[in-house]
Amino acid sequence: MLQQRSSSLAFFLSSSLRRSLLLQTSSSAQRCRRAYSIHAGGSVGEKIQDIDPSKLTITKTTTPKDLLPPEELIFGRNFTDHMLSLEWTASQGWLPPRITPYQNLSLDPATCVFHYAFECFEGMKAYKDKDGHIRLFRPDMNMARLNKSSARIALPTFDGNALIDLIGKFVKLDQRFIPETRGYSLYLRPTLIGTQRTLGVGPPASALLYVIASPVGPYYPTGFKAVSLEATDYAVRAWPGGVGDKKLGANYAPCILPQLQAASRGFHQNLWLFGEEDFVTEVGTMNLFAAMKNKETGQKELLTAPLDGTILEGVTRDSILALARERLEPKGWKVLERKFTMKEIADATDEGRMLEVFGAGTAAVVSPVRKISWKGRMVECGLSENQEAGPIAQQMKDWMEGIQYGDEEHPWSYKVL
Amino acid sequence: MLQQRSSSLAFFLSSSLRRSLLLQTSSSAQRCRRAYSIHAGGSVGEKIQDIDPSKLTITKTTTPKDLLPPEELIFGRNFTDHMLSLEWTASQGWLPPRITPYQNLSLDPATCVFHYAFECFEGMKAYKDKDGHIRLFRPDMNMARLNKSSARIALPTFDGNALIDLIGKFVKLDQRFIPETRGYSLYLRPTLIGTQRTLGVGPPASALLYVIASPVGPYYPTGFKAVSLEATDYAVRAWPGGVGDKKLGANYAPCILPQLQAASRGFHQNLWLFGEEDFVTEVGTMNLFAAMKNKETGQKELLTAPLDGTILEGVTRDSILALARERLEPKGWKVLERKFTMKEIADATDEGRMLEVFGAGTAAVVSPVRKISWKGRMVECGLSENQEAGPIAQQMKDWMEGIQYGDEEHPWSYKVL
Repeated sequence: MLQQRSSSLAFFLSSSLRRSLLLQTSSSAQRCRRAYSIHAGGSVGEKIQDIDPSKLTITKTTTPKDLLPPEELIFGRNFTDHMLSLEWTASQGWLPPRITPYQNLSLDPATCVFHYAFECFEGMKAYKDKDGHIRLFRPDMNMARLNKSSARIALPTFDGNALIDLIGKFVKLDQRFIPETRGYSLYLRPTLIGTQRTLGVGPPASALLYVIASPVGPYYPTGFKAVSLEATDYAVRAWPGGVGDKKLGANYAPCILPQLQAASRGFHQNLWLFGEEDFVTEVGTMNLFAAMKNKETGQKELLTAPLDGTILEGVTRDSILALARERLEPKGWKVLERKFTMKEIADATDEGRMLEVFGAGTAAVVSPVRKISWKGRMVECGLSENQEAGPIAQQMKDWMEGIQYGDEEHPWSYKVL
Repeated sequence: MLQQRSSSLAFFLSSSLRRSLLLQTSSSAQRCRRAYSIHAGGSVGEKIQDIDPSKLTITKTTTPKDLLPPEELIFGRNFTDHMLSLEWTASQGWLPPRITPYQNLSLDPATCVFHYAFECFEGMKAYKDKDGHIRLFRPDMNMARLNKSSARIALPTFDGNALIDLIGKFVKLDQRFIPETRGYSLYLRPTLIGTQRTLGVGPPASALLYVIASPVGPYYPTGFKAVSLEATDYAVRAWPGGVGDKKLGANYAPCILPQLQAASRGFHQNLWLFGEEDFVTEVGTMNLFAAMKNKETGQKELLTAPLDGTILEGVTRDSILALARERLEPKGWKVLERKFTMKEIADATDEGRMLEVFGAGTAAVVSPVRKISWKGRMVECGLSENQEAGPIAQQMKDWMEGIQYGDEEHPWSYKVL
């Protein structure tokens, strides 16, 4: 699956093809020669190396960090002793992986990641189960998505299983940073950046893939806290033909100003709408689910927007859909991936059919929604005043964490050996 | 003008306001506390420092580089001896500017520029005139645009005149790198990146503004070379409510794959279309101009797309429009900023009304277009087989360079004293 997906998107990324593009275009415009000239090294047909975990070298830190008390953990602020790094060049492919002490990157100020946003990343977590084993959750999904993100911005693809193997070794080395307590985990951030140091706008001829790890506490330390959203139409996160379905750095910085504007009006996140119809797409940096009764049949429905190219292909989204199909449909629910509008949500509320709304993502797993500000009105989302989560959000969190922490043996849980 | 523009967009960026947002939201969701907690330093009302050129410190290199022979200059590949750097923090504002030897940046791997594309830049040039004076071209336009770009992604704004002053000092120090020959110049790359080292998605509490300089040759060393374009509708560069009018890194990486695909079919650049109507927006990394005779009146018209939020606000575009209004309209031309479609271009060609088409940008000044592939047909753009540029492209290049190199005294040319 991974290979199939990435190979179609990576079609233009093999360096031999890059070279043939160079040959095709070098006789014509000066502009293209400049943009592609850096790919001329190496001979066509040369074997390009994929990631090879057997070549891993490990340099351990001589100054191990103190562990922070769990209550002082802040998301993505403190990191473990080490990091995993892999360099790539267009002529050689993936160079031997290295685990080294956590350290600064030293990059020329002309490096393309600083100018043209050649960067993509993943968010995933490592958990300790009750027997002390380390577990990852569906890491193959993260590898497949990172390959798709990377290919979309002309960065290299790689063997996902090889990187999972290396991430396992890295996490095992730094396992003392994984908190034992339920709700805690080690957040992993695989990051892939273009490192070519020229200002010409073209495909990077070198890249760096690195993984850093930050111990994190539960998203809601004192239990669920339902959030309030501002339905946002003046700023548009993603569009057809764009890159909103990829986990690119480019999708994040433009969302901060609308987030600050929503916050200034008292809302925690933006609910990103799309088009004149006010289609519901995503919330903040999460996918969105709405549970409501069907207007005609009264059947309970769990709705989320389809993967039409404008929706991030969330691993939590996919997992919730699968669990709902397996465990809610037998109880009479209908699970739907379809476009739906803000008006449908408001109508369900007005007509007493609204059950609950929640966001879904790696950081919070699920994030219940209390209300949404839309066109000057406040749309309540099914919670009573003292209720912080609906039953489906609670159920999904329990099912997900049961699998993530290994209470329930499940193929999604990947045990690091 | 600069102040007016940037202040409206920078409304959410003053750190005192950021702090008030923190106060408003810190009592509600955990997510917001995490995102904004880094802004809690400093007291409200504290004076935030703008850029102060009088505090500049200069550390000269002890290993000056050799100058490259002009024919070996490649765009954005080689840099001068020094760089200009300014750090910013939310609590202190802009710290004293520094000119240092050109050197690597050392950044924590969690730095937000690597993850969320907190980055924007400018492209501008320094020229040597016939008397040996250094000249910049409309640097106030670059400063205004950098402020708008920065504000849009929650990075800091600054006093544009202060930065022009500093850029002047930097260029003067490295002036031996500005080639004397006509057509050559020193390309300047002001770059502004977020440097906060946490993975929380929020406004960066620290940033780095730096300027590097690369000596460059003429875009077309042997004279104009007309390019061929592929009209692109399957990938969409910009969208209303998006950030396509800002010079953000985020706008560049997603355009490389379509560029490679166009190149694989023999085209030099993408012509980015928009919407079902196939509106013409931009070409590659340039604005586009089309010169054609009006269907009804026969009057000569110079067309370019309006600044509707999806078009980069090019300095060259603005300059060509102004020159055309001043110097072509008296000769009977009509200059129009309006939406126009690919069909209008094709119709003009089919009906013998097409005069010429060219791109406009800092790197090439103007870039003549020979033909455009669109919906399976090839639309010729007014050039005869052996002609590499139309008369308007040639005239605009001559006028622009006359001003840029100081042959014609003009308010757009900024003399570095």
